[in-house]
Amino acid sequence: MIQDWLNGQPLGAGLQRDRGLAYGDGLFETIAVRRGQPRLLERHVQRLAAGCQRLRIPCDVTQVAGEIRAYAALLGEGVAKLLITRGDGLRGYAPPADPEVRRLLLGSPSPAYPEEHRLEGIALYPCTTRLASQPLLAGLKHLNRLEQVLARAEWSGTEHAEGLMLDQGGRPVEGVFSNMFLVHDGELLTPALDHCGVAGVMRGLILELAARDGLTVRVSPLVLDDLLQADEVFLCNSQYGIWPVRRYAAANWSVGPVTRKLQGSINEILE
Amino acid sequence: MIQDWLNGQPLGAGLQRDRGLAYGDGLFETIAVRRGQPRLLERHVQRLAAGCQRLRIPCDVTQVAGEIRAYAALLGEGVAKLLITRGDGLRGYAPPADPEVRRLLLGSPSPAYPEEHRLEGIALYPCTTRLASQPLLAGLKHLNRLEQVLARAEWSGTEHAEGLMLDQGGRPVEGVFSNMFLVHDGELLTPALDHCGVAGVMRGLILELAARDGLTVRVSPLVLDDLLQADEVFLCNSQYGIWPVRRYAAANWSVGPVTRKLQGSINEILE
Repeated sequence: MIQDWLNGQPLGAGLQRDRGLAYGDGLFETIAVRRGQPRLLERHVQRLAAGCQRLRIPCDVTQVAGEIRAYAALLGEGVAKLLITRGDGLRGYAPPADPEVRRLLLGSPSPAYPEEHRLEGIALYPCTTRLASQPLLAGLKHLNRLEQVLARAEWSGTEHAEGLMLDQGGRPVEGVFSNMFLVHDGELLTPALDHCGVAGVMRGLILELAARDGLTVRVSPLVLDDLLQADEVFLCNSQYGIWPVRRYAAANWSVGPVTRKLQGSINEILE
Repeated sequence: MIQDWLNGQPLGAGLQRDRGLAYGDGLFETIAVRRGQPRLLERHVQRLAAGCQRLRIPCDVTQVAGEIRAYAALLGEGVAKLLITRGDGLRGYAPPADPEVRRLLLGSPSPAYPEEHRLEGIALYPCTTRLASQPLLAGLKHLNRLEQVLARAEWSGTEHAEGLMLDQGGRPVEGVFSNMFLVHDGELLTPALDHCGVAGVMRGLILELAARDGLTVRVSPLVLDDLLQADEVFLCNSQYGIWPVRRYAAANWSVGPVTRKLQGSINEILE
C-alpha cells in the first residue's frame, strides 16, 4: 500500500488512521493542574472509566491516572487534556475486537479568564444551535463535539463569556463548555442529562457539596421559564469553578447567596 | 510548554492537536479508485464543498481534487479516504479565525464484498441505535460518527451485511454505511435527510439516473410500514454500488426489476 498524504506530501506513521480522528471514537478529560497536582483527578478518572465502559473501550484507568500524575508534575501549572481513543482502524465502523487504545496527554497554559467572571458574573449568549437527543451518548465527554463548535461560533467578542444551549424541545441543558444550575426558592436545580449534555466533574462536585450543606437538590428536565424565573443562575466547569450568570436575553440577576456560598465551598476544596 | 505524550512517551509534532481529533471538526470522503482514476470524483468534491461551506471550513476544493487525482494515480486500485479538518486548535471550541486546514489522503485495498451481495441481495440487521435529529449537520459526511460505531457494533458475523438505522421517531433513514431506496408501485422512494443521515454520492447519482430513466422519484420522510410493504428495497454506496435487500426482520423480498435496471445503469457509468 502507498504512503498516506498530508497536504499533498507523504506522511510517516502517526495518528492519521486513529478512530478518534476518523469517527470521534473516543473520550476526553480536561484537567486543571496546580502546583504539579492534577485537580479533581479521581472524579475525572471515574467519569472516564464510565465513558470507556459505555463505549466499550478497554482502558486501564489506573495506568491513565498514573500517567496524568506524572504529566502534571512536569507541567506544574496549566491544563492537561487527556484523550482516549479506540486506536487505529482500517476502513469501516466496526470496532476492532482487540483495539490498541491510545492515550494522549496535551498540556496548555491555564485559560486566562477575567476575575470579574467569578466575582460579578457573566452574560450568557442565547445560542440557536440546539443539542440533539441521543440517550446512548448523553452525559459522556466523547469526541463528537461539532454541536459545541457550531454553538461557540455563534458569538465572538467579550460581551458574552458563555452561551446557553437548548435541546431540540427548547429546554435549557448546559453552556457550550459548562454545566448550569438554578436556584428556586432555596432549592438547587440542574438539568437531567439523560438525552444530551455532558455530565461535568464540577457539576458532580457541586451536587455533593450542596447536599452536604443541607440544600435541597433536584436533577430533572427544566424548561426555559425555570431559568427565566430563577432567583439565581450559575455555570460551572472544572477549570473556572463557578461563574454567576448576570444576564441571559432580557433576564437579569444579581449574584445570590447560594451561588456565593457554593463558590466558597468549592474554593476551600480547590485551593 | 512541555511535550505532548502518547501512551506515556513524549511525542513530536503531529496530528494530536488537530480539531478533527479533538472535536470531529471536519469532513471526509471515501473514494473508489479504479485503474488509477478516482470514481465519481466530481460528486465527491461537490459534496465536500457543500460540507465545507456549511461548517465554514475554508478549503480549496480544486486543489483537493488535484491531490485526489495524483494520489489515485499512485494507488491504482483501492479506496482513497480523504479527511479535511479545521487544523490545529488550542483549547476551546471557538473555530480559529484563520485556520490551517489539513488535507489527509489514506489509501486502502478495495473492500472484499462477496459478489452474492450484489447479485442475490443481503439481509439487513435491525439496529437499535437510533440517529439523533440535528438539522444543522444532517446530510453532511462529517467526522462525528459515534452513532455509526455503536450501530455497527450491534452485530457481527456474515449473516447481515448491513444494518438499518431508524431516527428517534422510529422512521427508517439509512444503513450504517449506505443509503436506502424503496420501490412502491413503480415509484422510487428514499428518505429525506434534513434531520439526520448522510447524503451519499451514490444516492445522488441514483436519483438522477432514475429520473432520466423516467421513474417517478420521491424524497420524503418514510415510516417503517413503507419499508415493510415495499415491492423492492435496496441499499447503495459509492464503493459497492447497489445491494438488493432480501430480508429485514420478518420481511422478505426478491430482487425486483427496478433494482436490476438501476444496477445496470450504475454499472454502465462505473465500469
